[in-house]
Amino acid sequence: MDDTVFMHEALRLAQMDPSEVPVGAVVVKDNRVIAVAHNEQFASQNALAHAEMLALQRAQEALGTSRLQDCTLYVTLEPCPMCAGGIILTGIKRCVFAAFDTQYGCCGSVYALPMDPVFHHSVLCEGGLLAEESRALLNAFFQRQRHEAGKPAKRQGEV
Amino acid sequence: MDDTVFMHEALRLAQMDPSEVPVGAVVVKDNRVIAVAHNEQFASQNALAHAEMLALQRAQEALGTSRLQDCTLYVTLEPCPMCAGGIILTGIKRCVFAAFDTQYGCCGSVYALPMDPVFHHSVLCEGGLLAEESRALLNAFFQRQRHEAGKPAKRQGEV
Repeated sequence: MDDTVFMHEALRLAQMDPSEVPVGAVVVKDNRVIAVAHNEQFASQNALAHAEMLALQRAQEALGTSRLQDCTLYVTLEPCPMCAGGIILTGIKRCVFAAFDTQYGCCGSVYALPMDPVFHHSVLCEGGLLAEESRALLNAFFQRQRHEAGKPAKRQGEV
Repeated sequence: MDDTVFMHEALRLAQMDPSEVPVGAVVVKDNRVIAVAHNEQFASQNALAHAEMLALQRAQEALGTSRLQDCTLYVTLEPCPMCAGGIILTGIKRCVFAAFDTQYGCCGSVYALPMDPVFHHSVLCEGGLLAEESRALLNAFFQRQRHEAGKPAKRQGEV
């Protein structure tokens, strides 16, 4: 199967909970999805519950190891500093993301952390796959949010 | 109370489980410890279970909010990219750490992520408090590990 199939699955996950910033993630090994997640920050009142972190954690549980070196992460938004760090720590081989995040993106936009050989493990990161579909979901979400009072003005993925 | 008291508590936590890289963390609000943690990577087979991440998650649970803007994080080793990202996302006010990490440290050593105003929230990070005590724990741990076969040669905090 090709990258587009897995990114479509990540986009489907991004839309699971309308109260969350729409970001979905899947971890794939040997062309098989081994873990899926969507953002859970607002449901869990946990700022650290990004889709990528949850998917990486579930992939480790599924494989019974903390090393994901034969896996690829597909995520609908460029990973933030925390998630880029999670990518480095799990030793994942490759990260494919959809929309670029010019505010927090750390896989090429603001920083390029997983590509930096200083961390002894350089991860192949590729952005822009189905980016327009992901950006449309994000823009629609933030447009809804702006019409509600008391919501933060700038968040992960907002432009 | 002063920073040294809370760092001593973090150093005590760092020694809780001899199978883990000795790192401890506490989150303090209004001079009161609201969350504590030590590394749990090996116990949980989860590369993401760093002391700082667990402490930040527990602090959010304790306060019932994902915003930690009135809190200080004390940690015995300079935070890695992931934990530096967690510090940014929770909006914590201040991070005090003991030993510097020249391999993975992202609060001054390799990168200075939480201090970068590009992320819309600059965190005051101060390193070096009780650094010798923390470094002694880390060095003793890695020396023990090097005498055991099949253990990875370079890990978080190793020099």
